[in-house]
Amino acid sequence: MNLTRRRLLAGAAGAVAVGARAAAQSPQVPADPTKVRGRPARALGARSPFESPKRLPRSATGAFTPHQDLHGTITPSDLHFERHHGGVPDVDPQAYSLLVHGMVDRPMVFTLADLKRFPQVSRICFVECSGNLNRTAPPETTPQQLAGQTSQSEWTGVMLSTIFNEVGVSPKATWFLAEGSDAAVLTRSVPVSKAYDDAMIAYGQNGEAIRPEQGYPARLLLPGWEGNANVKWLRRIELSDRPFMTREETSKYTDPLTNDTARIFSFVMDARSLITYPTYPVSVTKGWIEIRGIAWTGYGTITRVDVSTNGGKTWTVATLQQPVLSKAHTRFRHLFKWDGGETIIMSRAVDETGYRQPMRAELFAQRGPGAANYHMNPVTGWVIRPDGVVVYREEAWA
Amino acid sequence: MNLTRRRLLAGAAGAVAVGARAAAQSPQVPADPTKVRGRPARALGARSPFESPKRLPRSATGAFTPHQDLHGTITPSDLHFERHHGGVPDVDPQAYSLLVHGMVDRPMVFTLADLKRFPQVSRICFVECSGNLNRTAPPETTPQQLAGQTSQSEWTGVMLSTIFNEVGVSPKATWFLAEGSDAAVLTRSVPVSKAYDDAMIAYGQNGEAIRPEQGYPARLLLPGWEGNANVKWLRRIELSDRPFMTREETSKYTDPLTNDTARIFSFVMDARSLITYPTYPVSVTKGWIEIRGIAWTGYGTITRVDVSTNGGKTWTVATLQQPVLSKAHTRFRHLFKWDGGETIIMSRAVDETGYRQPMRAELFAQRGPGAANYHMNPVTGWVIRPDGVVVYREEAWA
Repeated sequence: MNLTRRRLLAGAAGAVAVGARAAAQSPQVPADPTKVRGRPARALGARSPFESPKRLPRSATGAFTPHQDLHGTITPSDLHFERHHGGVPDVDPQAYSLLVHGMVDRPMVFTLADLKRFPQVSRICFVECSGNLNRTAPPETTPQQLAGQTSQSEWTGVMLSTIFNEVGVSPKATWFLAEGSDAAVLTRSVPVSKAYDDAMIAYGQNGEAIRPEQGYPARLLLPGWEGNANVKWLRRIELSDRPFMTREETSKYTDPLTNDTARIFSFVMDARSLITYPTYPVSVTKGWIEIRGIAWTGYGTITRVDVSTNGGKTWTVATLQQPVLSKAHTRFRHLFKWDGGETIIMSRAVDETGYRQPMRAELFAQRGPGAANYHMNPVTGWVIRPDGVVVYREEAWA
Repeated sequence: MNLTRRRLLAGAAGAVAVGARAAAQSPQVPADPTKVRGRPARALGARSPFESPKRLPRSATGAFTPHQDLHGTITPSDLHFERHHGGVPDVDPQAYSLLVHGMVDRPMVFTLADLKRFPQVSRICFVECSGNLNRTAPPETTPQQLAGQTSQSEWTGVMLSTIFNEVGVSPKATWFLAEGSDAAVLTRSVPVSKAYDDAMIAYGQNGEAIRPEQGYPARLLLPGWEGNANVKWLRRIELSDRPFMTREETSKYTDPLTNDTARIFSFVMDARSLITYPTYPVSVTKGWIEIRGIAWTGYGTITRVDVSTNGGKTWTVATLQQPVLSKAHTRFRHLFKWDGGETIIMSRAVDETGYRQPMRAELFAQRGPGAANYHMNPVTGWVIRPDGVVVYREEAWA
């Protein structure tokens, strides 16, 4: 790589010259920070005034994570996507309670303190909205605008199975209702088997209390399953021997099929990948460019990500950042040398079940013309134009 | 576990009664959040008004992480401990440059954009100040006050070896100087071998740009090595065939030994554990209590954490949260039933080298009466008094 060779110089003279540019910048900072005592320690840190990543509110009901601005796999909590049907409620943690009842031996109410006394677990995983695709995106589309409704945190809480053992769930119970305490009183039916697999009630996020938009003080966490079913501000769980057929699983969150029926309870999010660099609005120059992105699957681990730099004619296996965690955003990276010609870059994920993320045309052929906008995970990518500007162009991978 | 059995009730009547308490709380929230539309989506999230974790400034030069308030292993970036010798500088990322020179074939200056073009890596690891122990702590001591100078992030950047290959480091170079652009112009000598092992130049922290207190826009990251050597606001690296013997490694950060000599360049942080719950200022009640904490070692992975609930007479192996990452805070947990008597709880870590965290008396016997306050990693713990109040008492494990 020779990208820095033209910057070659002897000694520190160049560094001083570059430092002098600081005075022309906004916000104002000292031209030479070594000559000025810095600010003292403080109780809470804040971002550099030069950094201002932002969620993008799509409406009052949701806001998207700025993936083009992020590194690694943890989403800063204040940038985690949000999505709600009745706004974000303010819940008093002292007043919070969770009722667990229905087909159980001992119906109980748990306070937040009760939940925190149970054996604790943590896991890093993604949460993704099932409707995470902007289907008719213009060239000026960022990863945030295209698919900003997936985010990742280290979640901490209690296994739902622990709570189910405490109340004595009937062996005949096969489904449970999860109900939120937001203005929508959002409800979803979830198979009991998920509770005995890996479902949690989470009260911690990225080291601290869960954030209000993510369900403070406690939410249901169903690793790998569509966000909507991960009921936030969880106040009630009811055990039953059948699903409850709520609005959120009948009129919404079902997938019309090509045979005039609809798939219901399509919980698991399929394997997907998203390039986060280079993408709109970045411009690049000729030479080495590292294509970077995230890949994830609700079915377990990502086993491979392929990258194409010629519009899908050929694919190369990208490097995966270790450790690769189950049901977690996984960083992939691929270095290539851009020659200055128009170049279509794409990525496709493969997961531990052998499933490969489909091309857009494949996916739409499977789903039919009436397909709802749920569980859409097509291969996407960006076009590097000869002038170096990177734009989105969906027909490029139709 | 019967902790919630007394809360048993039929139906949701109890939940409603508990909810009514909300009106008496401050800050004010709706008594029933389902009856009020919640707040709309916004560009940046914020903590619940009921949550206010804070760093504890010890002076103008540092502030400690509130481990007693945290879950999991990621430290929220605004709560990462800070420590500096000349305050936190404001650095303009456009003006930033890093000079690499000395025993190299091609001295170069790298801009931040240059650093970001190189192959990127991420890793989760701790950074700990070498002076991370309050040696004469009163009973009213929290984990934050005792040892709040260790924190953990997912760091992203470029391997230092990549940069060293770029400039062509001489095979005769054995040490390098790292210099910060703060008012202290902090400098440390580091063996070149660390660069070819796992040293990084980090510009990302927990998904976003590194925070100002952690070295914005770029810092040296030496996983597992004392914080001071992880030079922040990194502006210069000079390769040499000997250490530079700076102030920070001669008058400071050396360890007097019992034979009237002093150990220098004691980089690696030894295995340690810290109980984070229950600790001062928590009060507990009789019954099941989960002891929780973090353990870490600069030598690789934590292989075991032992917990004692009888002042060290006997020890039980705690559960480790998987995955256990190298040079990373690792959560341990141990459930025990408190009978109401005075109980001393302690933890000790064992790492992959077989090293066991020493008892306080052992450690001080090794180090001698003149021991400096660097690399102090004694077994510590807390006393649960019969009234349920948990306090620190260092002589309990002398």
